[in-house]
Amino acid sequence: MSSNNQVYGGIEAGGTKFVCAVGTGPDDIRSSITFPTTYPEETLEKAVSFFRQATKGLTLVAIGIASFGPVDPNPLSPTYGYITSTPKPGWANTNFAGYIRESLGVPVGFDTDTNVAALGEHRWGAAVGLETFIYLTVGTGIGGGGLVNGKLIHGMLHPEMGHLAIPHDKEEDPFEGWCKFHKDCLEGLASGPAIESRWGVRGENLPADHPAWQLEAKYLAFGLVNYIYTLSPQRIIMGGGVMQQSHLFPLIRQRVQHLLNGYIQADDVLQRIDQYIVPPKLGTRAGVLGAIALAQDTVGD
Amino acid sequence: MSSNNQVYGGIEAGGTKFVCAVGTGPDDIRSSITFPTTYPEETLEKAVSFFRQATKGLTLVAIGIASFGPVDPNPLSPTYGYITSTPKPGWANTNFAGYIRESLGVPVGFDTDTNVAALGEHRWGAAVGLETFIYLTVGTGIGGGGLVNGKLIHGMLHPEMGHLAIPHDKEEDPFEGWCKFHKDCLEGLASGPAIESRWGVRGENLPADHPAWQLEAKYLAFGLVNYIYTLSPQRIIMGGGVMQQSHLFPLIRQRVQHLLNGYIQADDVLQRIDQYIVPPKLGTRAGVLGAIALAQDTVGD
Ligand SMILES: Nc1ncnc2c1ncn2[C@@H]1O[C@H](COP(=O)(O)OP(=O)(O)O)[C@@H](O)[C@H]1O
Ligand SMILES: Nc1ncnc2c1ncn2[C@@H]1O[C@H](COP(=O)(O)OP(=O)(O)O)[C@@H](O)[C@H]1O
Ligand SMILES: [Zn+2]
Ligand SMILES: [Zn+2]
Repeated sequence: MSSNNQVYGGIEAGGTKFVCAVGTGPDDIRSSITFPTTYPEETLEKAVSFFRQATKGLTLVAIGIASFGPVDPNPLSPTYGYITSTPKPGWANTNFAGYIRESLGVPVGFDTDTNVAALGEHRWGAAVGLETFIYLTVGTGIGGGGLVNGKLIHGMLHPEMGHLAIPHDKEEDPFEGWCKFHKDCLEGLASGPAIESRWGVRGENLPADHPAWQLEAKYLAFGLVNYIYTLSPQRIIMGGGVMQQSHLFPLIRQRVQHLLNGYIQADDVLQRIDQYIVPPKLGTRAGVLGAIALAQDTVGD
Repeated sequence: MSSNNQVYGGIEAGGTKFVCAVGTGPDDIRSSITFPTTYPEETLEKAVSFFRQATKGLTLVAIGIASFGPVDPNPLSPTYGYITSTPKPGWANTNFAGYIRESLGVPVGFDTDTNVAALGEHRWGAAVGLETFIYLTVGTGIGGGGLVNGKLIHGMLHPEMGHLAIPHDKEEDPFEGWCKFHKDCLEGLASGPAIESRWGVRGENLPADHPAWQLEAKYLAFGLVNYIYTLSPQRIIMGGGVMQQSHLFPLIRQRVQHLLNGYIQADDVLQRIDQYIVPPKLGTRAGVLGAIALAQDTVGD
């Protein structure tokens, strides 16, 4: 329950930009801001000043953070709320949640960007009412999060769904893969930079009938069937820059059905795959709105 | 709470044999029986007579069933408790849970064999206290189940972890794979029958230094890292006939570390992998004991 002047803050912290917003949901965003991700002190201070300004005359109840990673999302750990081992200059071992909490004096929720985007889609988007689903983003990297049994996936750490080992036929596609850790993992073969370095052209500039997209759909479908076999999601939401190519959706759906080959006897994939593999309903706002949802969850609202 | 004459029944229903037991836990099994899986009427009737005999003078509170699949584990579905589309002669569309419930007049819990084995290990075995972990069996097939956020994995249907799409280098291993649906999925490459048809010798008869085991460890490690990336389990328990080759454990652990290549910054995999990838503590009893645990859960005991 929030009275009219009670608001929540959301931070979507990406490797290239920060989006911050104040409000209570998709139809009630009081203000928002976007700025580039530079060094931690500067960037976090900018976020803090935004919230100070934007909540004048309002009550800021809590903040939710959707962070690029890897992060420590375990509330029992001494480094809870930290960005941990990122190669991004200056950001390794940054006490992100702690800094925001102390600067603004409110409770702070903290999780990975994709888990939080999943939460946004669960509260207001394409996953309302579902217990178990995945949110996958295909952009500079490939990342996935989701809910299982009604709660965000954590476990040992947090999902890193982009790094699956998948089939790679080097005769069909001699590109060796782009992942710094695994070369031809899913991210190494199918992220935006993989497309760009394989074809020498950015995805946004490739025509819809370019063979790049058949290959892209093939790799993404390998990823999706593996998620389906592992945790049997009720839906898979696919966002991120590369998925702006909306003609990818039918290609991916066909390939997923082809790969499953009738093994999973569920109408969701056999009959209704158009509603099974879908874009985010909140579009590019899933992350920051999810952060507001996380803020609400953090204080039990 | 159970008084001394209250007992639970467990059924582990496999494609080749049924194991039934009566008791309250690993240190209190009052009686058990094993018989071959023939046709449904005959096999289920055998189970029912066993429970009638074995619970004379006792109170049978509930039954848990760990079933071969695919099954319908969704309590809201009209075919809940059925074995659905199995190729096993006679067993497709068998109302397994309904038959047992009506014959014995007690509440019945029903889930996949591997989910139930996971539950057994969670109650009394290698996963006590964990919220999120996987139980994988490597035998005639490869199957996986587990808990995420403290509850069994269901979602759209149930996990089918054996059927992951993984890298297959056909120069190193020209065996085309054995899975009827996908040929060279994980199960098609690494199950017991895959080993037997690739090498012409059953796994139990291959020496520990045979190259079969390096290849086996490689494929299983691909599966494991994919589970790790997808749901970040706190532990992976590996059972089934093939894992009787205990020298596989160190090979698999090494390969998993090698494949992760430091990407997952968690001591569980970096420092303590010996306790991360482990055999079941309940050994071959995980399934039937899990079924007893499921019976207890079904009535809230
Ligand atoms: N419309 C598009 N079509 C294809 N690829 C795109 C499109 N827009 C962005 N990309 C690719 O996606 C990547 C950027 O991903 P994006 O999700 O926009 O940001 P980030 O992942 O950095 O948050 C780049 O590699 C870019 O080439
Ligand atoms: N000790 C062993 N070493 C290697 N492989 C084994 C061993 N025992 C059984 N297997 C193989 O495992 C498969 C049987 O799996 P098992 O788990 O015993 O039964 P099921 O999966 O049918 O319930 C067979 O392919 C068999 O060759
Ligand atoms: Zn990778
Ligand atoms: Zn298969």
